[in-house]
Amino acid sequence: MAVEPVVAMDVMGGDGGPKLALAGASLARLRYPKLRFKLFGDQAAIAAGLAAHPALAQSAETIHTDDVVLATDRPSHALRRGQNSSMGLAIRAVAAGDAHVAVSAGNTGALMAMAKLILRTQEGIDRPALAALLPTGRSDSVMLDLGANVECSSQNLVQFAVMGAAFARTTLGLSKPRVALLNVGVEEMKGTEELREAAEVLKGAELPIRFLGFVEGDSMILGDTDVIVTDGFSGNVALKTAEGTARLITRLLADAFRSTFFSRLGAALARGALTSLKTHVDPNSHNGAVFLGLNGLVVKSHGGASAEGMANAIGVAHDLAADGIGKKIAADLALIGPRLAEPRDPAAAA
Amino acid sequence: MAVEPVVAMDVMGGDGGPKLALAGASLARLRYPKLRFKLFGDQAAIAAGLAAHPALAQSAETIHTDDVVLATDRPSHALRRGQNSSMGLAIRAVAAGDAHVAVSAGNTGALMAMAKLILRTQEGIDRPALAALLPTGRSDSVMLDLGANVECSSQNLVQFAVMGAAFARTTLGLSKPRVALLNVGVEEMKGTEELREAAEVLKGAELPIRFLGFVEGDSMILGDTDVIVTDGFSGNVALKTAEGTARLITRLLADAFRSTFFSRLGAALARGALTSLKTHVDPNSHNGAVFLGLNGLVVKSHGGASAEGMANAIGVAHDLAADGIGKKIAADLALIGPRLAEPRDPAAAA
Repeated sequence: MAVEPVVAMDVMGGDGGPKLALAGASLARLRYPKLRFKLFGDQAAIAAGLAAHPALAQSAETIHTDDVVLATDRPSHALRRGQNSSMGLAIRAVAAGDAHVAVSAGNTGALMAMAKLILRTQEGIDRPALAALLPTGRSDSVMLDLGANVECSSQNLVQFAVMGAAFARTTLGLSKPRVALLNVGVEEMKGTEELREAAEVLKGAELPIRFLGFVEGDSMILGDTDVIVTDGFSGNVALKTAEGTARLITRLLADAFRSTFFSRLGAALARGALTSLKTHVDPNSHNGAVFLGLNGLVVKSHGGASAEGMANAIGVAHDLAADGIGKKIAADLALIGPRLAEPRDPAAAA
Repeated sequence: MAVEPVVAMDVMGGDGGPKLALAGASLARLRYPKLRFKLFGDQAAIAAGLAAHPALAQSAETIHTDDVVLATDRPSHALRRGQNSSMGLAIRAVAAGDAHVAVSAGNTGALMAMAKLILRTQEGIDRPALAALLPTGRSDSVMLDLGANVECSSQNLVQFAVMGAAFARTTLGLSKPRVALLNVGVEEMKGTEELREAAEVLKGAELPIRFLGFVEGDSMILGDTDVIVTDGFSGNVALKTAEGTARLITRLLADAFRSTFFSRLGAALARGALTSLKTHVDPNSHNGAVFLGLNGLVVKSHGGASAEGMANAIGVAHDLAADGIGKKIAADLALIGPRLAEPRDPAAAA
């Protein structure tokens, strides 16, 4: 990316509102001083927020809108009425070439629907997918789809593998990431027909990946693969189950540490050592789900993310934009193109 | 159960072999002194194992067989060749009325296939399901299906809800358990058509349950429902993801505690308080998956369970047998029977 990277921010989304979004942008700018921002939302709120971040104000442009997509809005409602919302305008800025990536902490369903409508699906991809980093045993792994597509064909899964591998090369710095399909067993005959067919295609494809076959939920978490490919239902269930389990254990641990005088003392002594564990499983450290497979980049921040979390999501947006992930995906799709014998998904082509 | 409960044990399954299986049986007998055992497997190995457990030997009968189902055997192979294996004979003892429940730590796929063939599916159930307890935020929750059925109809899911609720009443002692369907969101329009249809039926059914609608992976783990109903693919993925996450955090925690002098000291001081946390997330504390919906009870112990874990699985077997869970399920099915408008699954009826 020769020019300075420009992030189109939906400042109104997320539980923390404009104040938190701007604090996140300000943090991200410290890490990437060349970043520039287009801030979409209520001008007065943005001006008030920017007062605390003068350096950010210098590298940001405000585009006012009264319209906001609410957390409770249905995607269909957002599609009809949200074109001029802060979310819609941020995506449209990417479509128009005025920004390299859009970032929003707003309504996920609405963001996906609007991104798909405005940016359109990339050539060679039938359905875009939501990808993110998951903290695992070795470091982080890329997981997709996280909920954009409840049901998937084998062709969808193969394309997710290509997109996820490109994402891993960019965000994890791997030249040949290990890729596996999430399944209920590792043997070839396990799982659905879609999974078995996708495995067959990936096994034979000459991609810049190391295809491992199937992976189960536990070894996925222990870090046995760099990219986890799955349908949006299982992916969403697995991600939320992992988050819930991490939160449950952290809570039980805190209770245990508080329970006696000795345990309180023990916790105080071990505090330093426990910090890196906390950081590793903190969802804010892995914030920034990316909607892959469109003609333009859209990054979703957790609605409840901290300013640090928002800065991390913007960091992901920066890296992907700077690395030109869309072109990587297109190049890799060309490598497996001839192997895909299935017809295009008619629903996606419509 | 007026008579003494009899457990038919496949002594040859599991990583620990006969020695561990018998140690588990011996522990279980201490908790339930009226338990009697039929031990299926190699006579010499059983005799050697029983020498260490004279009290168990008094309440056990050995039935010798040379045949064993291997961990690597395909279910189809077990069906053809496994009828006289220790696993096959244990299930056949239940079918013949010689035992109330079969327990095995062997090959899960083979166990499910043989149990289904030998015991047959219970009247009113289209497909049996694998259920187990999952450690969650409040205490434990029942989850099913854990992998018996990769794809499920809405009718299957409704029947799983009935079976899971009966299991929760027996094992968790709840008179009206909270039941929810695992989904990617809680709104009515979320997920697959099968889930939405099943929710519709359960919402209107007059069952001894409190139907909550949909639950997501994180709130499931935090304990927001007593029974989690899902297809075998998502259930297996969620269970293994939760296990993997618990193992990962425990490992990171152990590393953190070992890292410095102060953290080692802290860990030593907090040890007592940490024990209950460890116990809560230890898979051995929740050992014993039950194959529900057959004309007879079969309990699967983890292949790698400890003797304590095996004793817990036998405890689950005892409770379910003593409580007559099959009759509870039949009674509840009658309550929703007229509401099921769908045709029976032809594959299951065949």
